[in-house]
Amino acid sequence: MGAERPPRVVAFGGGHGLFASLKALCLLGIEPTAVVTVADDGGSSGRLRREFGGIPPGDLRQALVALADPADPVSAALFQHRFPGGGELGGHAVGNLVLAGLADILGGTIPALEHAARALGCRGRVLPMASQPLDIEADVAGALGNVVTIHGQHAVASTKGRVQRVRLTPSDAPACAEAVEAVSLADALVLGPGSWFTSVLPHFLVPELADAIVSAPARRILVLNLSTDDETRGMPFEDHLHALADHAPALKVDVVLADPHIVRDHTGLSRAAESLGGRLVVAPVAASDGTPRHDQKALSAALRTVLGTG
Amino acid sequence: MGAERPPRVVAFGGGHGLFASLKALCLLGIEPTAVVTVADDGGSSGRLRREFGGIPPGDLRQALVALADPADPVSAALFQHRFPGGGELGGHAVGNLVLAGLADILGGTIPALEHAARALGCRGRVLPMASQPLDIEADVAGALGNVVTIHGQHAVASTKGRVQRVRLTPSDAPACAEAVEAVSLADALVLGPGSWFTSVLPHFLVPELADAIVSAPARRILVLNLSTDDETRGMPFEDHLHALADHAPALKVDVVLADPHIVRDHTGLSRAAESLGGRLVVAPVAASDGTPRHDQKALSAALRTVLGTG
Repeated sequence: MGAERPPRVVAFGGGHGLFASLKALCLLGIEPTAVVTVADDGGSSGRLRREFGGIPPGDLRQALVALADPADPVSAALFQHRFPGGGELGGHAVGNLVLAGLADILGGTIPALEHAARALGCRGRVLPMASQPLDIEADVAGALGNVVTIHGQHAVASTKGRVQRVRLTPSDAPACAEAVEAVSLADALVLGPGSWFTSVLPHFLVPELADAIVSAPARRILVLNLSTDDETRGMPFEDHLHALADHAPALKVDVVLADPHIVRDHTGLSRAAESLGGRLVVAPVAASDGTPRHDQKALSAALRTVLGTG
Repeated sequence: MGAERPPRVVAFGGGHGLFASLKALCLLGIEPTAVVTVADDGGSSGRLRREFGGIPPGDLRQALVALADPADPVSAALFQHRFPGGGELGGHAVGNLVLAGLADILGGTIPALEHAARALGCRGRVLPMASQPLDIEADVAGALGNVVTIHGQHAVASTKGRVQRVRLTPSDAPACAEAVEAVSLADALVLGPGSWFTSVLPHFLVPELADAIVSAPARRILVLNLSTDDETRGMPFEDHLHALADHAPALKVDVVLADPHIVRDHTGLSRAAESLGGRLVVAPVAASDGTPRHDQKALSAALRTVLGTG
C-alpha cells in the first residue's frame, strides 16, 4: 500500500458488528466499502420484506449510519429513529422506510444506497452482498442430539440449539457485481465481528462473492467476537474458526484479531488461526465497561497495526 | 420594496393550491415563507395523527417540495413517493414519515421543517399556521335547507352539502409565533388559491394569525381558484369573496387576481373585490390544457405584475 492514498478496504458483515468495524476504519481516514448481508427477516426489515419484497434494509441502514458525516448527527439519528408504539408504523426505523422508498423510485437497492449515502455525507460506500433478498436456514442440534433445520435469520439467530451449518436460499444467488469488483480491487478485507452464522459466514455462501474473497490479492483480516451469543452458545473461539473453514474451505486469512479477554487457550487459538493460513494477533479491542462491544478507538488502533497503515 | 433584495412574501394555504403559488413565487427569485394549515385528518396525514398525534405533515410536505432545489429531483420525489398497496405502509408518503420522525427526535414540527428544508435545498421556509394540530368543523346546508355540523377536514372537503361556515377546534389555538413574525415583516401576503373553506379560510380562524394578516403593513393579494370543488359546488366566485369577508370581517386586500375564464360577471366580481378594499386584476393564469390548475409561469407573470417586481 502506497503512502499516497489510504488503503482500499472492504468490510463484511451486518448489524452491530459491521457498524463497529466501519467506525474503526473511518477513524483511520479510510473510506471503506461495506458489503452487507441481505437475509434479515426480523423486525422492521422483516415487515418490509413481507409487505413489499425487496432487499431488507436494516443492516444496510446501520452501515450507512456508521459511515455518515458526524457533522450532521440529525440525519443519522433520523435514519436510526424507530417509531414508538405497536401501531402500523411502530417499530419501523425511518431509514428503513427511506431506503425502501428510494429503491422504489430509483428502481433498485444500489442507486438507493448511493442517494442515501450522499444525503448522509457518508465517507465510504455501502453495498448488499447479493442483488436479491435471500433466506438463511440452519442445521441445528438440540439437547438430545437430534438435528433439525431452522428457517429464517431471526429464528437461527435466536435458536436455543447448537448451529452446525448454515445455507442460503436460493443457494446460487448472483453476487452484487459492484461488491465483487470492490473486493477484487481492495488492499484489505475485514471479516467480522458479528453474529457468526448469520452475519459473518453468509458472505461465503454467495458463490461469486466467496470466490472473490478467496482469490482477491488483498490482505484478509478476521476480527473475532468478544462473547458468544445465542447462535454460538458455549462454542470456543477456536470452533468459530473451524466453522468458518467448514463453510469456506478455500479461505486463507492473514490475521486473526482477538481481544485478550477471549484468549483462554493461546496455543489452541494460534493453531486454529494457522490452520486458516494466518497468525493470531492479540490486542485490546473491547469496550472498557465490560460489555461485549468493540471500542471504536481500540479497534481502530489494532486495525491500523494489522493493516500496516500506522 | 427596494430593488436591492427580492420582496419578502408569505403565502398561505395547504395542498395543491399553495404548491402552485409557491412554485410561481420561486420563479420570480423570491424565497417565500409558506404558512400552512394544520387540520388535515385524511389519508396518510390522518393515519399519522391517529397513530402518534402531532401536526399532520401532508400539507407541510407539499410546501417543502414546492420550494425544493430542482437540482435534486430525487430527494423531492422521495418526499412525495407513496408506498403502494393496502398494507401497514401502503398509502403513506415517505416525506410524511420523515417529518414525523424528525419531529420526534428534534422535539417539534418547526425544527423538523428546518432540517427537512435544508435536506431538500429549499429556497424559502415552511411553517405551520399553529403549533398544535387542529380540527375543522363546518355548518353545511343540505338539499332540504337543513343545516348540520360536519366534523373533520376530510369530511368537509368532500361534503355533498353547501358549506356555510367553518370553525376550528380549539377556536383559540395559539398561532405559530414564527409565522406571525414572518407576516409582520412581509412586503406581500398571497392568499389562495386552494380549497376555499379548508385551506384558505382556516388561517383567519387562528386569532393571532388573523390579527397579524389583517394588520400587517404588507400588500395583500388574493388568488381566486379556477373552478369550484365539493366545498364550493355551485358557488359564484363573488360568494367566495363574501365567505372570506364573513370569516375575516376586518380583512382588506389590495388585489384579487382572477383568470379570465372564471370572470362571468366582471362588474359583480369587481364590486366584490372593492367590498374587500381591493381591485380586480384579470390575467391568464390557468394551465392551457383546460384542467383547473394554475400554470406556474403564467401565475408567476401575473404575480410579478401585482407585486410590482417586474
